[in-house]
Amino acid sequence: MVSSSGATQDEIRRLNVSTLLRQIHVHGQLSRADLTTRMGLNRSTIKALVGELSEAGLVTETIPETSMRAGRPSHVVRPKSDTAYVLAANIGVDTVTVAAVGLGGIIEGRADYPLLRPAEGHEMVIARLATEFRELQASMGPAAWLVGVGVGVAGAIRRADGFVEFAPNLGWRQVPFGQLLAERLGVHVQISVGNDGDLGALAEHVRGAGRGIQNLIYLSGEVGIGGGIVVEGRIVTGAQGYAGEVGHMMLNPNGRICRCGSHGCFETEAGEDAVLVACGREAGGGRAALLEVFAAASQGELRALDGLHEIAIWVARGLSTLVNLLNPDVVILGGPLWSLFFLTGDLIRSELHAMSIFAARTQVQVLQPGLGDDSSLLGAAELAFEPLLSDPVDAWSRRALTG
Amino acid sequence: MVSSSGATQDEIRRLNVSTLLRQIHVHGQLSRADLTTRMGLNRSTIKALVGELSEAGLVTETIPETSMRAGRPSHVVRPKSDTAYVLAANIGVDTVTVAAVGLGGIIEGRADYPLLRPAEGHEMVIARLATEFRELQASMGPAAWLVGVGVGVAGAIRRADGFVEFAPNLGWRQVPFGQLLAERLGVHVQISVGNDGDLGALAEHVRGAGRGIQNLIYLSGEVGIGGGIVVEGRIVTGAQGYAGEVGHMMLNPNGRICRCGSHGCFETEAGEDAVLVACGREAGGGRAALLEVFAAASQGELRALDGLHEIAIWVARGLSTLVNLLNPDVVILGGPLWSLFFLTGDLIRSELHAMSIFAARTQVQVLQPGLGDDSSLLGAAELAFEPLLSDPVDAWSRRALTG
Repeated sequence: MVSSSGATQDEIRRLNVSTLLRQIHVHGQLSRADLTTRMGLNRSTIKALVGELSEAGLVTETIPETSMRAGRPSHVVRPKSDTAYVLAANIGVDTVTVAAVGLGGIIEGRADYPLLRPAEGHEMVIARLATEFRELQASMGPAAWLVGVGVGVAGAIRRADGFVEFAPNLGWRQVPFGQLLAERLGVHVQISVGNDGDLGALAEHVRGAGRGIQNLIYLSGEVGIGGGIVVEGRIVTGAQGYAGEVGHMMLNPNGRICRCGSHGCFETEAGEDAVLVACGREAGGGRAALLEVFAAASQGELRALDGLHEIAIWVARGLSTLVNLLNPDVVILGGPLWSLFFLTGDLIRSELHAMSIFAARTQVQVLQPGLGDDSSLLGAAELAFEPLLSDPVDAWSRRALTG
Repeated sequence: MVSSSGATQDEIRRLNVSTLLRQIHVHGQLSRADLTTRMGLNRSTIKALVGELSEAGLVTETIPETSMRAGRPSHVVRPKSDTAYVLAANIGVDTVTVAAVGLGGIIEGRADYPLLRPAEGHEMVIARLATEFRELQASMGPAAWLVGVGVGVAGAIRRADGFVEFAPNLGWRQVPFGQLLAERLGVHVQISVGNDGDLGALAEHVRGAGRGIQNLIYLSGEVGIGGGIVVEGRIVTGAQGYAGEVGHMMLNPNGRICRCGSHGCFETEAGEDAVLVACGREAGGGRAALLEVFAAASQGELRALDGLHEIAIWVARGLSTLVNLLNPDVVILGGPLWSLFFLTGDLIRSELHAMSIFAARTQVQVLQPGLGDDSSLLGAAELAFEPLLSDPVDAWSRRALTG
């Protein structure tokens, strides 16, 4: 609510700067003419806004050398990805990935290292993150401006302060992760922590297969099944940030005990170990064993195919509940779930057809992630960019103050 | 996005008029001093906005006769519920309720009549609605201003045009209900149709047990189990409006065939007939039979108690999936589900405790509806008021034009 004309003008300018920067960040490059159309502002206003962002070192402008169109070519505005950047990490069950991500979602530097669970507790992970982040910071130029830190964790995270309530597959419980990481890093920027599935959904919505899609569900499986829900363009975090625990929908009242304490959860019926056991392999073989099963099935091994068909039905059951509850436009299946869908898509589709409300299922599309294995990492980066994107003017004023 | 200062001033005024009218509609009455605080505007702006709404006949102002506080008492602003009103209806499986609802959510007149299924197809329901609505219109004074029509239907509704895709418990399939009703009524206002569960959730959020609660789930059972989901203060409608089909979560892979075509849905395991059968009664007895079962259980009949305990576990299973997916602050149980919770709450709570993620379940509260059996009816009214509330200035300009 705006009460006086003075505040209004300044608020509108800030909002316009924010909208323009977000457009450039999301789309990578846009001409001034595109920006004029998208934002419904006149050319001189766009020119002035771009000028402000350019002065702050956040965007660059170039004049295209050739143009097929008649008339003066429109200046092209691009993010300056080596100036404003974030440090992002995703703590998966098997692997930790860290990266410096520039404006526009460009990965400027990255490192992946295996996580040795359960030996590697949160203290070791935090210490390692601090080292990796320092190296990435050093690799960015002296003009680089760290605007935030974002971390994805495979667990139930309180969004407000990054408190890890429970990360069963990492063996963490009630870890004040956000606070401990902030103390260790000692940086003067906001540190945001989110659930890896939520962040995967966020990145797929912003710049992946779900770009422009307002209602989507992202599912991904490592050891468990994680995911995130986007409703009307926003991640559903719920009351405290614990929403989106798709792996713990109760699908089988007679099912196996789950690491979460319940039984018959989606992830006990269709997670990594369930796949391995259904296909006649031993549980606990991890990603490598899973890849072997998918390879065997695609070469026609009956045991593997039968097992995958059994799992496919559980996946369809889980999807039908999600489709009936949330009527998404798109379901994105990441990691091994996409491999499963690639091999058993017809069965999943026909079972989903049988188990979901006619109206909701007719239009739902099942897609592969647009960002490969980096959905959660890039989602952590999006979380870290949010303070800059939502108020760039405030961000660069504070930068000027702190040096 | 706002481009010029002129447009800005007018848009801000319209937004402020809208916000103020919504505050009065939701809270029933507020002093000008309260409005000043809530809206962050100065006293003279509030006075002018109230003046506009008062001139349009939407609110009245009174000066309190006595005041315990020192100083001049602040004028109290109330909705004028006999001026602007909507026609609302809820088509449940057993009963149709129609009402004239005034600004502020005040029921000015109502009628309930039983629905004789399956004899009563959509044509008969529409004809009856038209008659009932005409009578209600006639009962409102000559100064009354019909601002919209809202109808709740127990089915999967395409929100855009009120097309009933599938209403299994009414026996309707692919009925262009919104269009047919508009043709029959011949009124010049917007006719909005929504799922009864979504509307129940909406009304409970706006003026019921979920007032001020941003994340809630509303569940209600007649023959089936319906419900609605509120995330960040907004009803989740999904891509086409079919979201919120809580009754069709797949809970039991070996369960009974459901009217929706699937099997083992929440409503086949915990709906009206499931309760009756579990308690040793015959299916199909309707609400009266259900009330008999609850009465018998509360008098200690073992067969009824055992049956209700069995159903309570299914309810906890359904709730655990909803809690894990959506992390709500509050779950509101309407109709027979509240009676069930009243009789078996401890069991439901302990099962929910065992099956849901620690963090999400700790804070969730289970509540009775604040609006009794009228949640969906009042939600239909809220839907109908929306065009007026979102832009009162536009609404009264159009009224002046059409007479």
